[in-house]
Amino acid sequence: MSPEEFRRQGHAAIDWIADYWASLDDLPVRAQVQPGDVRRLLPASAQEDAEPFDAVLGDLDRVVVPGLTHWQHPRFFAYFPANSSPAAILGDLLSSGVGAQGMIWATSPAVTEVEQVVLDWLAEALGLPEAFRSDGPGGGVIQDTASTATFTALLAALHRASGGAARLSGVGDVPWRVYGSTQAHSSLVKAAMMAGLGEDAVRGIATDPVTQTVDVEALRAAIVADVEAGLRPVMVHVAAGSTSTGAMDDIAAVAEVVREWGVWLHVDAAWAGVAAVCPEHRDHLAGVEAADSFVTNPHKWLLTTFDCSTFWVRDRAALTGALSILPEYLRNAATESGEVVDYRDWHPQLGRRFRAIKLWAVLRTYGLSGLREHIRSGVELARHVADLVADDDRFEMVTEPALSLVVFRLRAGDGQTLAAMEAVNASGEAYLSHTTVGGRAAIRLAVGSWRTTRADVDRTWRALQRAAAQV
Amino acid sequence: MSPEEFRRQGHAAIDWIADYWASLDDLPVRAQVQPGDVRRLLPASAQEDAEPFDAVLGDLDRVVVPGLTHWQHPRFFAYFPANSSPAAILGDLLSSGVGAQGMIWATSPAVTEVEQVVLDWLAEALGLPEAFRSDGPGGGVIQDTASTATFTALLAALHRASGGAARLSGVGDVPWRVYGSTQAHSSLVKAAMMAGLGEDAVRGIATDPVTQTVDVEALRAAIVADVEAGLRPVMVHVAAGSTSTGAMDDIAAVAEVVREWGVWLHVDAAWAGVAAVCPEHRDHLAGVEAADSFVTNPHKWLLTTFDCSTFWVRDRAALTGALSILPEYLRNAATESGEVVDYRDWHPQLGRRFRAIKLWAVLRTYGLSGLREHIRSGVELARHVADLVADDDRFEMVTEPALSLVVFRLRAGDGQTLAAMEAVNASGEAYLSHTTVGGRAAIRLAVGSWRTTRADVDRTWRALQRAAAQV
Repeated sequence: MSPEEFRRQGHAAIDWIADYWASLDDLPVRAQVQPGDVRRLLPASAQEDAEPFDAVLGDLDRVVVPGLTHWQHPRFFAYFPANSSPAAILGDLLSSGVGAQGMIWATSPAVTEVEQVVLDWLAEALGLPEAFRSDGPGGGVIQDTASTATFTALLAALHRASGGAARLSGVGDVPWRVYGSTQAHSSLVKAAMMAGLGEDAVRGIATDPVTQTVDVEALRAAIVADVEAGLRPVMVHVAAGSTSTGAMDDIAAVAEVVREWGVWLHVDAAWAGVAAVCPEHRDHLAGVEAADSFVTNPHKWLLTTFDCSTFWVRDRAALTGALSILPEYLRNAATESGEVVDYRDWHPQLGRRFRAIKLWAVLRTYGLSGLREHIRSGVELARHVADLVADDDRFEMVTEPALSLVVFRLRAGDGQTLAAMEAVNASGEAYLSHTTVGGRAAIRLAVGSWRTTRADVDRTWRALQRAAAQV
Repeated sequence: MSPEEFRRQGHAAIDWIADYWASLDDLPVRAQVQPGDVRRLLPASAQEDAEPFDAVLGDLDRVVVPGLTHWQHPRFFAYFPANSSPAAILGDLLSSGVGAQGMIWATSPAVTEVEQVVLDWLAEALGLPEAFRSDGPGGGVIQDTASTATFTALLAALHRASGGAARLSGVGDVPWRVYGSTQAHSSLVKAAMMAGLGEDAVRGIATDPVTQTVDVEALRAAIVADVEAGLRPVMVHVAAGSTSTGAMDDIAAVAEVVREWGVWLHVDAAWAGVAAVCPEHRDHLAGVEAADSFVTNPHKWLLTTFDCSTFWVRDRAALTGALSILPEYLRNAATESGEVVDYRDWHPQLGRRFRAIKLWAVLRTYGLSGLREHIRSGVELARHVADLVADDDRFEMVTEPALSLVVFRLRAGDGQTLAAMEAVNASGEAYLSHTTVGGRAAIRLAVGSWRTTRADVDRTWRALQRAAAQV
């Protein structure tokens, strides 16, 4: 592709995206395809000869779009929405264009330093403790996902608890134990599996039946019992906004418990953490100053294109102690000076792209005031949903609304609840997901997109009401 | 950003990239900044108010570009170049625009099915075994990096060798052992550390002093000795193109050895694997049909923007057995039907972006013929470097050229070799990296960019000659 051709096709790709966005409102949110439908539209082998880029654009419309569930659709309310924004997309595009690889400071200093600065900015904007700033012994890094952040936190915790023995001789037969509520994200169990502890090492602590938050006394009792039995507590995972219902564990109370045993405290605020750009939405992070590590995902609710999971630690030495390796071909003067950070030692991967540009672009083009407005809009729309639920006797709330997440059900029963949701999803008019709370089915409606208006919420609600009338 | 504003700024971002590329030849390849220089140009805090996107573009020029080592520069020859291409960048842009999240088939079917098809295409194009195709018990997946692929392979190997016990109760005190040559990539040791085995579990097997390839008899002896001592060999890592010198371990011979003990055979062809698009550059993969897993990085030498590391397994059940978790909120009919693949169970992360679009765009807009031409050009330029080395008595080759990688040194000694390289790097005229071979310093020159011409290689060589005259 010549430079002129790149400009032409690049402009066409930008326009394709703008047109795709403009079409979203008329597209079914959930893909209407069956397994194999997309595959059948594609040739069996790669072709020998070059095709023009227009052919790829054409196949996006013909093959891909019908097979997409449209995550950027204004009526996508499932899981936690992964919101993109124009500024983030262009920021990421620029990062592709630069094509720099920031595995160590020396391989492209700006990749590391812009990331450090932007993570310091975001830590301050969220009211996170000074200890997480990069100019002390802590610091922040962009991970791909919160799953990786939780796994990395566990490796750092094992490093600290083992006095460095784990990286040398493994986790061995030390009976390490990891704690989280029964509502903790599945990535906690996956992290224990990957770190060689196994899923049996994870203690699922009971939650309060109303708030779904961890029962701190049960946590204390589990740790005491384990210590007395000769087991080794290594990390406690706190959900500052659980996936199922947005439950906010009491960080400060958990911190009291873990302090006594020197257990690593990891706060997983993947979805809800970014809400703290608003001072009035920081209560769920009270106590975070005691955390050893903290993760929140700007790629969920802060308008930053996936992947962008911001992760901070109080003591980066535990992290780099667990993960550092320095082969000869990466030796360099800057690393040896100790004046720089080499992010390669902060995550499982070696290579890394310049992900900070997209977050930088979001922080600058929205400004903190614009980001607050975005968060507040999501919270307000969720409250509106809660009002709609309250106004219709066929429905009931399952838990209190948590920021932009509302969990409700049909009073008629589980079958009706799931059938009503499936009817709406199948219609393509909106897309919701489900969970179980206290053994009963519930519908989750999570607002996140900057495209979502009150009209979208109302239209979705009417679709749910119609479905409720028919199940 | 309004739709019209997105179009305008999007076109500007595309043009910024085209202009940046046009300027590369005149920029110093290696960043000319000291630690903290970039950071000092940025404000201490995020701003309150929104700025126009133009301000971000302006700061790319003012703050970022001077702090970059230009990986897309035609005279970037360090590490292994991470080559982007216009088609891949636009493919990735479209993936950002779509903003779909493919953690499971149901969350956006096209994300999964396009990836399956494109990985089947690439497997066929590289002459990989049928067993890796997605229509049998195996299959391919795009990982972020080869480090993650190697780690994932180790988790699958542990799952198989432990009969599923590892995911439940951890690696425990079973004395697992992992094997690779002393030239194996550092990610092997990192994988063992992360999987809870520790670095001591990795046996670094001696290499042939000339070829730098693994000594297969030494590997056999190590496994035999370990088995006799009651240790448990779990995985052998084969380097099909080592990082240091491009050494090609004999896959077929290693396969003979591992077969006897049922040890997992992982082939790490991160850099050199993609060369197999050329039938004449497949020798180093002879024996790959015995591999349990295989990784190569289109983001290194196949024109696909980072990150794109293609990973195949013969038996996906070992992978998903090691990594699958199904929380209630991800339960769905497609998964339960068993008719679909849920890629979430193929890697450490849960969330995943639509990375297949960029690889699809590369395969289509270059065609296999265009990709072969690109690989052949890199090999030819490397041979040209080898000729230049042979023609200058002050220099000598350290190993035979390996595809696009040439390793050489100054006869004068290690100090002079490193000083000459540093002089060229400091000048900004070209960028090279170093290694040690047999305890002696050597310069690595790896060709990879589609922008690199013979003139770039000659200019770099003249700079090295001038430096050699002065050290």
